[in-house]
Amino acid sequence: MRLPIRAVTPESESAEIIGWVHEVRDLGGLTFFLIRDRTGIIQVTIPKKKVPAEIVEAARDVSRESVVRVQGKVKAIAKAPGGREIVPEELEIISVAESPLPLDVAEKVPAEMDTRIDSRFLDVRKPRVRAIFAIRSTVTCAATEFLHSRGYINITTPKIVAAATEGGTELFPIAYFEKEAFMNQSPQLYKQMMMAAGFEKVFEIGPIFRAEEHNTVRHLNEATSLDVEASFADHNDVMELLEDLIVYVYEAVAKTCGEHLAELDVDLAVPKKPFPRIPYAEAIEIANATIEEKLAFGDDLSPAAERAIGNEIGQHYFVVDWPTDIRPYYAMPYPDRPEFCKAFDLMHPRMELSSGAQRIHDHDLLVERIRAKGLAPEAFEFYLKAFRYGMPPHAGWGLGIERLVMTMLGLGNIREAVLFPRDRHRLTP
Amino acid sequence: MRLPIRAVTPESESAEIIGWVHEVRDLGGLTFFLIRDRTGIIQVTIPKKKVPAEIVEAARDVSRESVVRVQGKVKAIAKAPGGREIVPEELEIISVAESPLPLDVAEKVPAEMDTRIDSRFLDVRKPRVRAIFAIRSTVTCAATEFLHSRGYINITTPKIVAAATEGGTELFPIAYFEKEAFMNQSPQLYKQMMMAAGFEKVFEIGPIFRAEEHNTVRHLNEATSLDVEASFADHNDVMELLEDLIVYVYEAVAKTCGEHLAELDVDLAVPKKPFPRIPYAEAIEIANATIEEKLAFGDDLSPAAERAIGNEIGQHYFVVDWPTDIRPYYAMPYPDRPEFCKAFDLMHPRMELSSGAQRIHDHDLLVERIRAKGLAPEAFEFYLKAFRYGMPPHAGWGLGIERLVMTMLGLGNIREAVLFPRDRHRLTP
Repeated sequence: MRLPIRAVTPESESAEIIGWVHEVRDLGGLTFFLIRDRTGIIQVTIPKKKVPAEIVEAARDVSRESVVRVQGKVKAIAKAPGGREIVPEELEIISVAESPLPLDVAEKVPAEMDTRIDSRFLDVRKPRVRAIFAIRSTVTCAATEFLHSRGYINITTPKIVAAATEGGTELFPIAYFEKEAFMNQSPQLYKQMMMAAGFEKVFEIGPIFRAEEHNTVRHLNEATSLDVEASFADHNDVMELLEDLIVYVYEAVAKTCGEHLAELDVDLAVPKKPFPRIPYAEAIEIANATIEEKLAFGDDLSPAAERAIGNEIGQHYFVVDWPTDIRPYYAMPYPDRPEFCKAFDLMHPRMELSSGAQRIHDHDLLVERIRAKGLAPEAFEFYLKAFRYGMPPHAGWGLGIERLVMTMLGLGNIREAVLFPRDRHRLTP
Repeated sequence: MRLPIRAVTPESESAEIIGWVHEVRDLGGLTFFLIRDRTGIIQVTIPKKKVPAEIVEAARDVSRESVVRVQGKVKAIAKAPGGREIVPEELEIISVAESPLPLDVAEKVPAEMDTRIDSRFLDVRKPRVRAIFAIRSTVTCAATEFLHSRGYINITTPKIVAAATEGGTELFPIAYFEKEAFMNQSPQLYKQMMMAAGFEKVFEIGPIFRAEEHNTVRHLNEATSLDVEASFADHNDVMELLEDLIVYVYEAVAKTCGEHLAELDVDLAVPKKPFPRIPYAEAIEIANATIEEKLAFGDDLSPAAERAIGNEIGQHYFVVDWPTDIRPYYAMPYPDRPEFCKAFDLMHPRMELSSGAQRIHDHDLLVERIRAKGLAPEAFEFYLKAFRYGMPPHAGWGLGIERLVMTMLGLGNIREAVLFPRDRHRLTP
């Protein structure tokens, strides 16, 4: 029975392993392989005079990154990784790797991002890169567990839609039989409709699609969004939920991904609750104290402003009380000062992670706000209808999974946090 | 503080609730409301002479399915739902529902599927319909938990792709900036590439898109697929995993969704392991014993054949040992009888739930099989490349979430199991 490499200890008598040939060294009378699987690396030592001739023969054909099966005796040996080696009694080449490799898995030669993604399946063999995706998996599974345990219903909303969520032009058009359709840029309208459906608390983890032209290290054209919406809740309620979720997810990663964090040299600090709430007006002041291109009231926060505020605050924080005019039409204005609204952004010191708000639940106010944005209410009839037959007050947010992983692990490029990125110029692999 | 309706007991002294007006009855001196939230229904009784005039006034304007807040004294009363009623001290109309309703939530008049989906947000207010989606949520969350706990990594593969998984024409084309792209019909090729990446065990729950022309009660053009792939595993290993997952998910639903199952009148029997393995040749014989349009060797199982075999077996089962020619190019032929392959379908007595196989991991054999299907290997270069640098043996399957829910709950139409179905004719809401 094959063992994961981690399970082979210096005390094991014999072992059968399958893995990738990480390195080959031929010293004449002695050949060393390092074999790698997802649990670790082990040395296989082939003393040519002491093993059967067919093994020596087979070993000659083994190229780096081939998949091999080795069965043999385990010996304790201080200098080898994990303090043990295998001397093979059987050696089977399961899948030969061509040479040269398009990418160096042992990472002696660092590669450019584009080269890495062109051969992503090789790139991800690097323990450091695999660690990112093992952690990303823990993030999504822990978020699912957290929300399910709090009574949130996991919903699935359509990705093929007839209308733009925010009326923008940044949509990918689809030919849907005889009709024109679009790939959805956000589950926003659908999760709100589920509030009218009486679902009370919902979440979804799924793809979102944005035909944004700009190509940066923090934008993707296809990303994963964790969306939440809750009835009978206001912006403060869902900010608390978001804080709790962030802390829960960080704790899950800290608790179960120690090895992967070590691989990435990340000393993970779990954020402390409550995160500071910084009113928009104050955020502008903090930013303007240091940035060159000063912001005026009503400007969105520029990347430079985000960095300046992040430096000042030094931890996760919320920007609250935004000007109504620069938020989407569905954000609820404060009744007593309608030029501000109950919207918020969750910020990591490096960048924005999440946007949310208490939403407008009054049909007529919503129509007014849609018009004020220069959009046509007729295009939103399927959505507005849900506001005419009993819509409860509700609030929610959307959180970018890639940005969460990127900021958690200090990754420089958002493409590090997604297996097969889609951007302005990239559609493969 | 607002209470969920379930929490209001005959022993409560007072309560504040928010919910939808399920029914209104005006008996002159006495008005009854039934108020509904996601936890239940409660009666609100307004004796006109005993409550403040402004409440009587407000109550006059309350239409069915409006959202109201009620604060008042709780009284035990045998005839009311849950044995209690509230006599209001405060009544606030939060959101007025227009009349008439496009759909009867109290379901005195049953509606056609199309009418129901046109007003899905109202349709889902029916406790019976909501129960389906609460159960679906438990299914996806339990599956996530099961796979995560077994060391499967939750991956996200792209939905915008440059090539067809199976070379079929059943794809929705997308305008991706200057390029033509498609919505992915399956994560198949990507999850296999993650085997070359050394991920060993992966899963994904995500949307799949098929531009199939036919419109039936068991097909959708956008569906949710649970995909699994495992290295160093054969078809038998992943069939066992699939069996374990089905049983785990049924048990989770049986254990935690009692109320919802009762709402649906479903007496859930957890399937027993192991599910019978029926070789394809035998399945054909079983079917031909009763069906009219007899099948020949090499035919796919017709819906009539699936029903006939299902009737005979009477539980979940696998059809194994399929003719290689009628399975996708990536299914692994048996070395000693290559006209058969290591593919399987998981069947519910009513229909197919899942397809899987041990996959071909040898590059040259794969190219040969792609050619044999009349496809061009050049179109699959991004995929084939992963087979040239060390691809381990692997196996996996894809499971349709909607069909799993549909068969678990005995639903007649797959559209019952998806909030916003997309089919040949439907793109909204």
